[in-house]
Amino acid sequence: MMSSTFKLQNIDNRARNGFLKLNHGIIETPVFMPVGTYGSVKTLTPHELKELGAEIILCNTYHLFLRPGNIIVKELGGINRFISWDNPILTDSGGFQIYSLAELRNITEEGVVFKSHLNGETVSLTPEKAIAIQEDLGSDIMMAFDECPSSQLDRKYIEESTLLTAKWAMRSMKARVDKSKKLFGIVQGGIFKDLRKTSIEHTVSLDFDGYAIGGLSVGEDKNVMYEISDYTCSLLPEDKPRYLMGVGTPEDILIGISYGIDMFDCVMPTRNARNGLLFTANGRIHIKNKRYERDDNPIDKACSCYTCRNFSKAYLRHLYKAREMLVYRLNTIHNLNFYISLVKKARDAIKNRNYKKFLKETLEEISKGDNNV
Amino acid sequence: MMSSTFKLQNIDNRARNGFLKLNHGIIETPVFMPVGTYGSVKTLTPHELKELGAEIILCNTYHLFLRPGNIIVKELGGINRFISWDNPILTDSGGFQIYSLAELRNITEEGVVFKSHLNGETVSLTPEKAIAIQEDLGSDIMMAFDECPSSQLDRKYIEESTLLTAKWAMRSMKARVDKSKKLFGIVQGGIFKDLRKTSIEHTVSLDFDGYAIGGLSVGEDKNVMYEISDYTCSLLPEDKPRYLMGVGTPEDILIGISYGIDMFDCVMPTRNARNGLLFTANGRIHIKNKRYERDDNPIDKACSCYTCRNFSKAYLRHLYKAREMLVYRLNTIHNLNFYISLVKKARDAIKNRNYKKFLKETLEEISKGDNNV
Repeated sequence: MMSSTFKLQNIDNRARNGFLKLNHGIIETPVFMPVGTYGSVKTLTPHELKELGAEIILCNTYHLFLRPGNIIVKELGGINRFISWDNPILTDSGGFQIYSLAELRNITEEGVVFKSHLNGETVSLTPEKAIAIQEDLGSDIMMAFDECPSSQLDRKYIEESTLLTAKWAMRSMKARVDKSKKLFGIVQGGIFKDLRKTSIEHTVSLDFDGYAIGGLSVGEDKNVMYEISDYTCSLLPEDKPRYLMGVGTPEDILIGISYGIDMFDCVMPTRNARNGLLFTANGRIHIKNKRYERDDNPIDKACSCYTCRNFSKAYLRHLYKAREMLVYRLNTIHNLNFYISLVKKARDAIKNRNYKKFLKETLEEISKGDNNV
Repeated sequence: MMSSTFKLQNIDNRARNGFLKLNHGIIETPVFMPVGTYGSVKTLTPHELKELGAEIILCNTYHLFLRPGNIIVKELGGINRFISWDNPILTDSGGFQIYSLAELRNITEEGVVFKSHLNGETVSLTPEKAIAIQEDLGSDIMMAFDECPSSQLDRKYIEESTLLTAKWAMRSMKARVDKSKKLFGIVQGGIFKDLRKTSIEHTVSLDFDGYAIGGLSVGEDKNVMYEISDYTCSLLPEDKPRYLMGVGTPEDILIGISYGIDMFDCVMPTRNARNGLLFTANGRIHIKNKRYERDDNPIDKACSCYTCRNFSKAYLRHLYKAREMLVYRLNTIHNLNFYISLVKKARDAIKNRNYKKFLKETLEEISKGDNNV
């Protein structure tokens, strides 16, 4: 149950509560990591994030590599200093964004050549380069460079891709210079259990500091996502942190925790906030709904976030209709508070050996909400 | 030098320092009022405004009348409660926006019929209606309904328009029900001194709680604006607050104070912030400038605002280039802090009977800056 950097404190069935020691501090798990793509969790200051209880944020290597560039960030003292956030940061490897944003040119065993989505310039990434960039950025947790194929692709493609990811994992591991920065391996294998198993064997043999489950939430059915997460998690080593990448809804996160996942990231709370979709203890609501025009109540009466302490749904709706920037921020505060608080409640339930009951009751509550959402 | 609500404390030549008692508190003058058109000073929370030292904000009657509507604001407890700001608020009369934003239909002695810029709906405003809307909103200072003609129009038009504004001023005064809400009259007259004089006589005879100088910064030459402000100010009663509407640059404000203006509002600090243009003690800079790409310094080393305490120009430039919403906010904090601090320094100079020297030195400093701005 112990390793030098990850310490499990409580286990309730498969759900886990622990502590992960990183260069910029110790984070408690399970943990939700807000996404700060370009070095800013959209609309929020780092100080607001801290007030919201965020312990670690994710920044995107692909984006920061293209703009402002890892060399500039390094020159300016690293990503923490650059963005004025002194708590831990995880950077992804850039792989996922290449597949989702860039105009893809070519994947070879060497790496990926692609066109920047910003200016069409041809750029390349390799495992070695992805690690060097992350070391320049100076994140606490780096991710190995992987291929993240769509779940629509056939078994043969996924099989080859999983092997490529395994080779890249080895090169990523070799490329690391600074061992104080944690490096996580990524398990791929699509929706095929045997490929997942093979991928785990390859990845775990390299003794990473933690393991991520990649290649999910990329178009597959929700139940398949659950099944593969569940299966993959059951084969991962107990003594290392487990990270389910890019997932998901509040429901997904609670279910993931029940499988033994420790870390999550997702743009959902922040992106939905900017689109007016808000999470509450009683389900989702859309703030533009006409029914809130004269509604003097906060988004969620039980919520203690800054937004709910100070503003009515009527005001938020007004700002949203008028496209006032303040609303994107107030909504983001609320949604992130919802996610972070939810994960903290999950921690408490694990500590109280009560997770199963907590999960069932919470899933029922949060599935209510506006009919139109 | 005294009236029940306005108390002059210090006079240095023509520059004045005083206190104005309003329903939601006492404000010190000279004062700069940030503009919160739709009930939000764009990107900022009311709590940030307070931290910045904002004592009073301006909201636009025209905008709030169209959306969400004065009736809804009234139902929800008035504008202060609606936007969660418990300090004073000034509302304009809606006049200026009709001329600048709406598709104008018809100005008659009765009022103005125009098309909403939001949905093209035909709406009308009269002096009586403008006051009723402002009373519904519940602002501390209401403005009389006026016509604000372009300075390009000929003398004959301005002459008639000034007479119309005088009639509307009388009707605005009669329409007021709640005398705890202050009502300011607006002096018009374009760039014609004799018409300004006539307008002052008309307006002052109605014994408003304060007097605004309207119809400037609407296309006339800067020196004409100064000359007319100077002249108009010299004819206004000493014992009432004087408000120069919609003005202006830091230089304009400092010069206005030297004429004896007490109150200012302008979108310049907030709008420029969103466009990347920042004010510093050594002149204006544009944050997108390539020269800031690796600049680890704050916008202004002497500035103590949140933005300057925490972020480098390199980071702000990066956010600006990436169109990250956070930068609009960080820039707004800086620019508003600059305006508010500048006016506070002006107050101190008046208290020290040192305004003339302060004005000269400060105008020299703030006229420096980027060559490209």
